[in-house]
Parts: sequence; C-alpha cells; structure tokens
Amino acid sequence: MKTLIVYAHPEPKSLNGSLKDLAVSTLDNAGHEVQVSDLYAMNWKAVVDAADYGVHASSPLKVARDSGRAFDAGTLTPDVGTEQEKLLWADTIIFQFPLWWYTMPAILKGWVDRVFTFHFAYGVGEHSDTKYGERFGEGTLAGRRALLSVTTGGPEPHYAARGIAGPIDDLLFPIQHGILYYPGIEVLPPFVLYSTDRMTDKDYPDVAKAWEQRLLTLESTEPIAFRRQNFGDYEIPSLQLMEGLEPAGRTGFGLHVRG
Amino acid sequence: MKTLIVYAHPEPKSLNGSLKDLAVSTLDNAGHEVQVSDLYAMNWKAVVDAADYGVHASSPLKVARDSGRAFDAGTLTPDVGTEQEKLLWADTIIFQFPLWWYTMPAILKGWVDRVFTFHFAYGVGEHSDTKYGERFGEGTLAGRRALLSVTTGGPEPHYAARGIAGPIDDLLFPIQHGILYYPGIEVLPPFVLYSTDRMTDKDYPDVAKAWEQRLLTLESTEPIAFRRQNFGDYEIPSLQLMEGLEPAGRTGFGLHVRG
Repeated sequence: MKTLIVYAHPEPKSLNGSLKDLAVSTLDNAGHEVQVSDLYAMNWKAVVDAADYGVHASSPLKVARDSGRAFDAGTLTPDVGTEQEKLLWADTIIFQFPLWWYTMPAILKGWVDRVFTFHFAYGVGEHSDTKYGERFGEGTLAGRRALLSVTTGGPEPHYAARGIAGPIDDLLFPIQHGILYYPGIEVLPPFVLYSTDRMTDKDYPDVAKAWEQRLLTLESTEPIAFRRQNFGDYEIPSLQLMEGLEPAGRTGFGLHVRG
Repeated sequence: MKTLIVYAHPEPKSLNGSLKDLAVSTLDNAGHEVQVSDLYAMNWKAVVDAADYGVHASSPLKVARDSGRAFDAGTLTPDVGTEQEKLLWADTIIFQFPLWWYTMPAILKGWVDRVFTFHFAYGVGEHSDTKYGERFGEGTLAGRRALLSVTTGGPEPHYAARGIAGPIDDLLFPIQHGILYYPGIEVLPPFVLYSTDRMTDKDYPDVAKAWEQRLLTLESTEPIAFRRQNFGDYEIPSLQLMEGLEPAGRTGFGLHVRG
C-alpha cells in the first residue's frame, strides 16, 4: 500500500501522537510506503483566504470559482499543491485526530477546506439526465480507501444508538460520506477509542494491539457500503433516494448505506 | 436583546457578508445592542496550541486540563478571554457562515475549539447519581439563545429527509446540540439559504425580507426541544435515553428532541 497519514494533534507525546507513530512503524515494517502530513508540525495554514489563489483570486473573492481557476492553472499555493499530490499518490489515507466538539479539530477542517478545491474534489464531471457530476462514489480520488482513527474523551455508551452524543456513525457521517466519499474515496469502518481522558499507560498495550490489528488487515477490510450517486439509487437532479430501497424503518443518514 | 454575531466568511461583499450587515442594521434599528465577531477581519487564530495557555501549558500539553487551569487563573490569551466575555454579555448569539463540506469553516471551528475551554464550556458542575456535570441544558451559557444562519451551495432537496447530503437538521445536530446546547444555550430553528451558488442580485430582496422577518421575531421563536440531560430522560452515567420516551420509529439524532 501507499499510505498517507493525515495527523492533527498539537502534542507529539499524546495518545494521538503515539497512534500515528505506531501506524508509521507498523506499515513500514510490513513493507508499505508511508507519508505523513503532521499538520501541527507543518504549521498548516487552517484558513481559506484570497492568498490561496494568487492571481486567480477575484475581487470580490469567489471561493469555489477562484479555487477551481487556480487549480486548473496549477497556481495553487505550494502547500496545497503538495497535499493534493500526496492524495493522488496514495491508495490509502488514514486520518488520526481527537474528536473535539463532536468533529475534527479546526486545523484538520482547514486542511479539507483548502486542499479539497473546486475541480479537484468537487465540481468534477458533467451534468446530464443520468449524472449529477462525478461525486459520491466517483471523482478524482476514486480507487482510494480511507480510515478515520479517532479518540473521544467520553465513554462508548454516550455514542451508542441511544447515547446523548448521538451514534458515532452519524457523528462521523458528514466526514466519511460528505468529505471523503464525495470525491470518490471508499471509507473503511472507523477505529474509535473511547474514554481516552481516563486512559492510563497500562491500557496502552491493548490499544496498540487493536490498532496494529486494524492496520495489518486494511487491505482485506470491506468499506462502508455507501450508495453511489449516479447508478440508479437517486432521482436526478433532486438526488433524493428512490422509494423502497431501504430496510423498513430506516431513516436519516443510514438511508445512504446499502443493505 | 444583547446580540453577538459570530461571522465567518473571507469576503465582505459575499452573501454571508450582506446577511451579517443586514442583521447588524436590523437589530440596531429595532433598539437592540449588537456586537460582531468578524473572525476573518479579526485575523482569528484558528488553531489550539500551547501558546493559548501560557504558563499553564504543561509539557506534554494536555488540552482539556491546561485550558481549564488557564481559565481558572484568568490567564487565557486576551483574544479568547474577550470572546468568552462577549458570550457572557450576550443573551442571543447568531452564527453566520457558509456550510463548507457539510459543516462550519475551519476558522469558526477554531473559534469553538479555542473559546469553549474546560471549566467554561465543559467540565462544569458536579457528578453524582443524578447528575453528570452541567451540560445539555445546563451550564455556563444557560439562559442564552443561539441561531445558525447558514448558506449552502446545493439545492434544498439534497438536504431533505431522503436527500443525498442527509437531512439538514442532522447535519447541523453536532453544532446545534453538541456545541451549543452542551454548555446550556437554547437553539432556535436555523435560517438556511439553499442554492446560493445560483443566486443572483434579483433574488436578494426576498432573501433579505425573510432574514429580517426571522431577526425581528427572535424573541418569540420557540427553541428546538432538545432533551435535558439531568432531568430523568437519560440513565446516569451511561447517558442513554430511557426506553419508550420517543415516538414510534424515531432513531438517531432525532431521539434527543422531545415530542
């Protein structure tokens, strides 16, 4: 595998830092190629602004259009261009981050906002009676697989079907489906560690073993069965799921997973 | 009302900028007090790091604990302290932002990550057999109301119950419930404008009229009926919703709304 690890934690000696280091060594020892985007170490610029698009920044700024023009012309800032190249190089992408306020830290959202430009991650493909662009199962990043490795402070029951935080699969849906599946990436079931605020050094060997196990079986892991947009499950252009496809009683984000 | 508007868009001449300006003038003309946190204009630092906690930054850094110590000692950086004071001053908070990749822009997530510190927005209140801290309906910011004013590029059907993006209420749940209701803020139904990529100047008068109407009726608008954590609906400490409280067939995030 060619694996890109996108890692977002300010403290190298954190649990997230250890899990990132373990992923690098485990994959390397197994003969895989690994690149790491350590966003804090890179001092990653988190904020989209006109400086991202150079001469292609309009006045007034149009984020989508201007990012597409800069992408087309090859004039995106080098930091963004480099991340896009890493994504094109990789066949597997691991995101290592703590769940802060039920989603990713700002620095990682800023990586998405800046790297996933128009014409690269969205605004790809034609629109017709049977196709609404190349997205949700097609797109620039098709053929790649991603995995979220996430830590939470709170305990697992809070993230269960009836838990007060909401089901973890629903909390991660806007990332797994909305950010990753949108430009074509298949998404593997996440690796989630709960109650990490209460974790001690003696818990780490079991955590490490579970993580190594996931890393060494990535190639045989089945992705989440998100429904593809342009293959009959959705009405075009309303993109509403056709009636009757889902198991009885299923609603919400779960509609967009087959079976 | 004492209204704080937290605004996150890089272009003052954008639709989001116009909606922010209109909110300021409409509320001001109606005799309300208004403060604005224009995150781009403030050059808001989006990224949590050790510099936020000064002498209270441990090595290794512990984000939750260190942010709580700096909060307790009154030594958070002035930018964060000022935003906390604005939140304590306000009785109404409006968030104006574009939905980027199905959630808030990084600069606004960075406002949450940095301003919502331990002992201010979380880690508040005691734990007992009947109480799991003051959160989800109680907390430092209780007595306040918030409203999300959000623009999307895509059309409304994509965000409907069966739409491919997922229902808008579910996409906003981690913000409305996980970020705002958690420290005690009541949340009003959002003001969402769809298809804004296709909007032209001739559409603006109707949009402006609808927004003014919402702004001038904020005080009489009923908040979303999120369930309070410590008042019998949840088992403590698992925080799972008690059986039988929800309407038949309801699942997912919707469980946490009454009725």
